[in-house]
Amino acid sequence: MSLLLGIDYGGTQSKLLLARDGTAVRQAQLPTHRGPGALRRLAEQVDGFLDGERPAALGVTIAGILDEATGRVVTSVNLPWLDGTDPVGDLTGLLGIAGVAIQDGHAAATAEVKLGAARAHRDIDDIFVLTLGTGIAGAHIVDGVLRRGAHNAAGEIGHMGIGEGRRCGCGQRGCLESEIGGDQLVARWQEAGGGVAAGGTAKDLVAAAAAGDERAVALLDRATTALGRSLLGVIALLDPGLIVVGGGLAQAHEWIFEPAVRKTVDGATFHRLPPIVPAALGVWAGAWGATIAAGSALSVSERPDAGTDDQQPSAIHGL
Amino acid sequence: MSLLLGIDYGGTQSKLLLARDGTAVRQAQLPTHRGPGALRRLAEQVDGFLDGERPAALGVTIAGILDEATGRVVTSVNLPWLDGTDPVGDLTGLLGIAGVAIQDGHAAATAEVKLGAARAHRDIDDIFVLTLGTGIAGAHIVDGVLRRGAHNAAGEIGHMGIGEGRRCGCGQRGCLESEIGGDQLVARWQEAGGGVAAGGTAKDLVAAAAAGDERAVALLDRATTALGRSLLGVIALLDPGLIVVGGGLAQAHEWIFEPAVRKTVDGATFHRLPPIVPAALGVWAGAWGATIAAGSALSVSERPDAGTDDQQPSAIHGL
Repeated sequence: MSLLLGIDYGGTQSKLLLARDGTAVRQAQLPTHRGPGALRRLAEQVDGFLDGERPAALGVTIAGILDEATGRVVTSVNLPWLDGTDPVGDLTGLLGIAGVAIQDGHAAATAEVKLGAARAHRDIDDIFVLTLGTGIAGAHIVDGVLRRGAHNAAGEIGHMGIGEGRRCGCGQRGCLESEIGGDQLVARWQEAGGGVAAGGTAKDLVAAAAAGDERAVALLDRATTALGRSLLGVIALLDPGLIVVGGGLAQAHEWIFEPAVRKTVDGATFHRLPPIVPAALGVWAGAWGATIAAGSALSVSERPDAGTDDQQPSAIHGL
Repeated sequence: MSLLLGIDYGGTQSKLLLARDGTAVRQAQLPTHRGPGALRRLAEQVDGFLDGERPAALGVTIAGILDEATGRVVTSVNLPWLDGTDPVGDLTGLLGIAGVAIQDGHAAATAEVKLGAARAHRDIDDIFVLTLGTGIAGAHIVDGVLRRGAHNAAGEIGHMGIGEGRRCGCGQRGCLESEIGGDQLVARWQEAGGGVAAGGTAKDLVAAAAAGDERAVALLDRATTALGRSLLGVIALLDPGLIVVGGGLAQAHEWIFEPAVRKTVDGATFHRLPPIVPAALGVWAGAWGATIAAGSALSVSERPDAGTDDQQPSAIHGL
């Protein structure tokens, strides 16, 4: 099997994963450089991480709407410097490794279905995967196929309006992401006078709640109420057979995952509640999904009918 | 081609349609009898309507969650006397015509895709159909196949929470249906002191708005704001290639359809907006969908591999 590089390019942290045959060879988590020059800095981080290894292909997650045919980013709310760019083309140029871009929620969902939480539910063929990070990503996988939508823009559960709420980064009001997106939680806690140090993350907020900070407890209570409401909306509209909740914030089991599930169950009326399970790959789901995308693109590019199978990611963006 | 009977069993009005080969032979709209004995009264209405004609099969729409394998109603918010019953079994027993039940939103959506608005968009294979009536039903049709969900309960866009709002018939708060469902609109108008006569419907409310009643105008403004918000949520989550809006209320083009579309377009930020078109079959979409279901069930029951094709409605419930 080929050596594959997965890059989960997050709004706060990026994860690098070198894998062969579904087994991690090496992995690292590094702060994301933001703004102009960010991709060049990322390429430098990757170069140091590889330390001379030569993966056959790379996959990179994009938090936003991606034109997977061209690899161009249409819009990224949390990484706006990517708008209109071709990050894989740039990384390929900088690193000399051909690759493929994949929307971040799609990557995490694919990994959880193929390698993670959903493996224990192989009989269920209708799965919704929610990833809680700086942004909120969703993915619906039916009969093993990711529902990409008509413009490859499906899954934006974070930008469904669920209440009045504040202005979201996307320009709307009352989005789920404005209630439970990592950056939004930190911003709210700072506004409420909570002591987040520079560079603090939502993890610090969870730690403060665990230490008894009532403002932090109240903020997380509000966030999980919003998440429960969104989950009920997804259940009403899609009726999935399984929901997997992952991402960095979901790892705060007692403060995020458990209350959100409890509120979903308590709030259900006519709903057919599916099992709601935590992701198994933790914060590494996106990076695993990126390696799966890299491997699929590699096998597509090596097949005579390359690119004609719409169940595969788009063909690899070559050197 | 066989003579087929479609029954659109609505919360306020029921529509009966006798069709052959996609052409209406006879149609009628009658008030729905509610409560215990309702199905016996419906069978009497159908018997009078048929006037001696003998359709080969009947289809009946159910506004609620339906176990399509057995024909039993799991839950109906607006026709609660159907909960746990087998309405097709009952109608077959009363009328001597074998039949099939189909969820109302699924019926209307199938009809709009096969016979109605979506026929002009044959290149689009990802369509969301919204039906505005006493209740609000949705259906997502991808590659010609209705997405039924894991428990045949998908499409309940009317019971996605979009704001704080009032208690909905489903037991939740702030559902779309509590803002724009026909019964809810009438109840609100009565509470606001609007003059709805006994048996009045949302059509009277629209007429009052057209006549300049400011309370009616304000209620419809609020309702279309809610609808625009829900449509943006559907676009964010599903990214459909086409949205079709039908049902009785959508026929109030100037007061419901146009403002809702305008608010959807005005409220869009990152969204990839699909065309949003009015349904072509009007209030008859459900009845047409019921005849299509009857015809499909009939052809399934006549095939040697009857019941094995999951793209068809469930096998017919025989005599």
